[in-house]
Amino acid sequence: MSDEADVLAANAAYYEAFSSRDFPAMSEIWAPEGVSCVHPGWPALVGRQAVLGSYREILRNPRQERIAFRDALVLAEGDDARVLCTELVGEAALAATNCFRRLGGAWRLVHHQASPVVTAAQAAGKSLH
Amino acid sequence: MSDEADVLAANAAYYEAFSSRDFPAMSEIWAPEGVSCVHPGWPALVGRQAVLGSYREILRNPRQERIAFRDALVLAEGDDARVLCTELVGEAALAATNCFRRLGGAWRLVHHQASPVVTAAQAAGKSLH
Repeated sequence: MSDEADVLAANAAYYEAFSSRDFPAMSEIWAPEGVSCVHPGWPALVGRQAVLGSYREILRNPRQERIAFRDALVLAEGDDARVLCTELVGEAALAATNCFRRLGGAWRLVHHQASPVVTAAQAAGKSLH
Repeated sequence: MSDEADVLAANAAYYEAFSSRDFPAMSEIWAPEGVSCVHPGWPALVGRQAVLGSYREILRNPRQERIAFRDALVLAEGDDARVLCTELVGEAALAATNCFRRLGGAWRLVHHQASPVVTAAQAAGKSLH
């Protein structure tokens, strides 16, 4: 497969692990070090213990909404790649960035951030920037 | 300077360009290609034309709130580095990620994303994940 196809497969595996509440798979997807994550509304989490700890809680939360993604786009350069996609969580759309690094031939997740996208109706309020 | 100090200087230059509404400086900070940006509440922007176009509008918006940052933390690996910091925009705190790539010896911005951090009071509502 091309790098782009490999990165898209790694990105899809992240959402599959999330959807199926598969913590061991999620743990394997994340790189062994140098990781960070910004869940919607959360401050940044840095390091495997903080990041994986958050996923352990999220994946076993029975009230966690279903998640899906669409419109994945890859920007790759050497051993680093970034996927931009839209997450669909319940009724909400989020702009998500997943940063991968190629380690030992596999694309491992080093950073995830998802931000709520404000709808036209909500945008009647104040924009931050 | 160490890589970390260089990356922190590049990160500070981004906020200085933003604060001083210096579009030429902002344009120089961003890499020539492979760039993406998620402003708070916006969908992802991809490519220099879309990203720099958004900054041109933001920097000349007289209602744009003042911006500052604190607690910058660098995760660097080879020619790629990621800065996590807290942005202070008016009364709001945002979790920001700035991804830099070393190109021709200079750290250039390839991705920016800022997400509002929900306060304890706001968190009484529903969490997305």
